[in-house]
Amino acid sequence: MSMKQYLLTPGPTPVPDRVLLAMARPVLHHRMPAFSKIFNEVVDGLSWIYQTAGKPIILNGSGTVAMEAAVVNLMSKGDLALVAHSGKFGERWVELCKAYGVGVVEVKAPYGAAVDPAAVEKALADNPGVRAVFIQANESSTGVRQPYEAVAKLAHAQKDCLVVVDAVSALGAWDIKMDELGIDALITGSQKALMLPPGLAFIALSERAWARQPRSDLPKYYLNLATERKAQQNGETAWTPGVSLIIGLAEALAMLKEEGLAAIFARHDALARATRAAAVAAGLELYAPGAPSPTVTAIKAPRLADGTALDTDLLVKHLRSSYGVSIVGGQGSMKGQIFRVAHLGYYGPFDILTVVTALEMSLKDLGCKVELGVGTRAAEEILSAWRKQAKADAAPKK
Amino acid sequence: MSMKQYLLTPGPTPVPDRVLLAMARPVLHHRMPAFSKIFNEVVDGLSWIYQTAGKPIILNGSGTVAMEAAVVNLMSKGDLALVAHSGKFGERWVELCKAYGVGVVEVKAPYGAAVDPAAVEKALADNPGVRAVFIQANESSTGVRQPYEAVAKLAHAQKDCLVVVDAVSALGAWDIKMDELGIDALITGSQKALMLPPGLAFIALSERAWARQPRSDLPKYYLNLATERKAQQNGETAWTPGVSLIIGLAEALAMLKEEGLAAIFARHDALARATRAAAVAAGLELYAPGAPSPTVTAIKAPRLADGTALDTDLLVKHLRSSYGVSIVGGQGSMKGQIFRVAHLGYYGPFDILTVVTALEMSLKDLGCKVELGVGTRAAEEILSAWRKQAKADAAPKK
Repeated sequence: MSMKQYLLTPGPTPVPDRVLLAMARPVLHHRMPAFSKIFNEVVDGLSWIYQTAGKPIILNGSGTVAMEAAVVNLMSKGDLALVAHSGKFGERWVELCKAYGVGVVEVKAPYGAAVDPAAVEKALADNPGVRAVFIQANESSTGVRQPYEAVAKLAHAQKDCLVVVDAVSALGAWDIKMDELGIDALITGSQKALMLPPGLAFIALSERAWARQPRSDLPKYYLNLATERKAQQNGETAWTPGVSLIIGLAEALAMLKEEGLAAIFARHDALARATRAAAVAAGLELYAPGAPSPTVTAIKAPRLADGTALDTDLLVKHLRSSYGVSIVGGQGSMKGQIFRVAHLGYYGPFDILTVVTALEMSLKDLGCKVELGVGTRAAEEILSAWRKQAKADAAPKK
Repeated sequence: MSMKQYLLTPGPTPVPDRVLLAMARPVLHHRMPAFSKIFNEVVDGLSWIYQTAGKPIILNGSGTVAMEAAVVNLMSKGDLALVAHSGKFGERWVELCKAYGVGVVEVKAPYGAAVDPAAVEKALADNPGVRAVFIQANESSTGVRQPYEAVAKLAHAQKDCLVVVDAVSALGAWDIKMDELGIDALITGSQKALMLPPGLAFIALSERAWARQPRSDLPKYYLNLATERKAQQNGETAWTPGVSLIIGLAEALAMLKEEGLAAIFARHDALARATRAAAVAAGLELYAPGAPSPTVTAIKAPRLADGTALDTDLLVKHLRSSYGVSIVGGQGSMKGQIFRVAHLGYYGPFDILTVVTALEMSLKDLGCKVELGVGTRAAEEILSAWRKQAKADAAPKK
C-alpha cells in the first residue's frame, strides 16, 4: 500500500480539492472577455485580502519575482536601501539590491530574533539618504514575525523613504492592513495563504510608490510594473499570464470570502498557539520564543536520551518515510539544527494534530525522551477553545 | 444552453484532459525526492524535444521571460546585437536589448515576409562587433517561418557571435535540431506545442553560450541562469517552481513520446497545409505565402460583396459569439487587417475542420462571397492523404 501523504510545509501549502479541480477546467484565452471578467474579479479579491483601495498587480513567478520587481521599479542605481533582516529571506533583499547596484545599509538581528526597531531608527538617522526600507512581515526560515508596523512608521518619518514588505508567508494569514499601515509595496505569492500551487506572485504599490516608479532607472522589461499596471487596468496582463492559476485563484478567493477575514486570522492564530503549546508540552524548545510567527513555528533540535541533539534532517526524513508527513528542516546554517511546522493556508486543526502526533511518535522512534499524548493534549485544549469561540462568533446576534 | 467552446488560438493552445487532470493531483513539495524524480525526467524529456545533449533550464513565467534571460545572461552593457525581424515578437528582441543598454543593429523585412539571410550577412560584415544574432523560428504575429538555420550559419562565421532563437511557437511542432544547427540559445514556452497552460518558459544554452554567461555584466537575480543551472543539475530549482505545471509537463511529454517526433512533425505539417489549402480554395488570400509558418496561418481580410475589406476583428468576434470558436485577429498595425488560424500543439484534423467550417459559415453570415464546403473539401483531401501515409508509416515493417 502506498502511504497516505500529508503536505504540511510552509509553501507549497496544501491546495483544496475545489481549487485543484477549478484549475483542471479547460484553459481560457487571456485576451478574451470571459477571462478578463474573472481577472477583474480576482484583482478585486486581492484588494480585499491586501486591505487596500489600490489594485494589486499579478505577476508570473514565485514570491522572489515580486521582490525583484519592488527593487527594480522603486530604486535607482546608486540609491541607498536599508534592509532590516534576521534570516534567509531578509538576506535575499540584500542580494537583490546588490545585484542591481543599489547600496545597502544592513540592520541585522540574530537568527531566531526579530529586528530591533530602535536599531532601524538609529540607522535611518545615521543614513538620511536611505530611499527605502526593506523588511519581511514573516521570516519563514526562522519562524519570526518582524516588527514591520513600527518600521513602516520610522520609514515614513524619513524624507522620501518608502517601506517595502515581503509578506509572502504572511498576507492572508493575519491582519495586515496595507493602507492603514502605509506600506508602500506589499508582496505575496500564490503558494501560501492563498492556497494555490506556486506560480503567481503579487505586488501592490501605494500612490507614493507609483509616483516613484517612473523615476527608477534600473533596467527592466518583464518586471516593468508601469507596463503591467496599464494592461491590468484593462483586465489583461502585459505578458501571457498563468491562466489556470488565475482560475484557481478565483476559486480560492471564493473560499476565503466564505470564511471571512476575521475567521481566517483567528484560525491561523489558534493553530499557531496550539503548535507552540504542543511543542513546549512535549519538552521541546521554541527557536523564536520572543517573536513567534503566526504561520510557521521553528523548533530547536530535540535532545536524545544521552543529552546530545538529534539531527533535525533525520527527524524530517523519519516523519516522511514512516508516517507520510512532510514538514521542513532548517536552511543554510540552521540545517540540522531546527525543524519547522507550518500553519499557513488551507490548514485545519487536524493538520496540526497530525503533525503533533506524528512528531511525538517519531521522537519516541528515534530515541528521544517524550511522553506520548502530552503535546497533543496541550494542542487540543487550545483548539477546542478556539472552536467554541468561533461558533459563538458565528452565531446570529440576538 | 451554454455553447460548446473551442479554443483554437496559437497560445494558450488546447490542453489535453490527461494533462489537466495530472495537474489536479495533490501538490508536491519542490525540495523533496518525489518531486526531484519527476523534475529530472521532465528535463530529460525536454532534451529529447530540443534535440540536444544539453539540459534545458526550466523557468517560471511566459516565453518572454526566457527571451529576457537570454539577453541578460549572454550580453553585456554596450555590446552590439543584431536582431533580424519582421513582426511583433521580433520587435520584442529589440525592446529587450534596448531596455538593458545593449546596442541593436536591425535587419528588417516587411510584415508577412521572412527576413533575408543576405541582408543579415551584409549587416554582419558591416558590423564585426556584433556579439549575438537574435531571431524567431516562427513569427506568430504574421504567420512567418524565419530562416533561422541560414542565420545560425552566418552568425557562426562571425567572430565570437552567438545565435539566439525564439522558438516559443515552433519547438516541438517541427524539426529543430538544436545541436546540429548550432543554436546557442533556444527558447520555448509551456502553452504552445508542449500542450500545457501558460506559466513555464524554457531555455537551453550551447556550451559556447554557457562559456559566455559568466562574462555577462547585465544585472540579474531571478533570471541568473548560472544559479538555475547549479540547482537544476541537482533535481531542484533555485526558486520555487510551478510544481503543478511541471507535473502536467511530465504527462504532456509522455503523450508526445507516445506519438513520436516524426509523427508530431508530420501532423503539424499536414494541418498547416490543409489550413492554407482551405483558405485559398475558399477564395481567401494568405498573408505570408512566401514563408508560411507550420504552426499558424495568417489570412488577409476577406472581401465583402461590395469589394471592401471585412474588419477581421468582427470576423473573430462572430466566430466566437455565433459558433463558440476562438481564433485570433491581427496585432498592432495588423489589427483588423488579418486573422490567424493556429495549428500548434494538441490539434487534430477535426480542430482544423472545425475552424474551416466555422469560417465558411461566418463568411456567409457576414456577407462575403463564399461557396460553403469548398474550403472544407480542400482540407479533407490533404488530411485524408496524411492519415493514409501516417497509417502506412506506423504499420510494422515486413
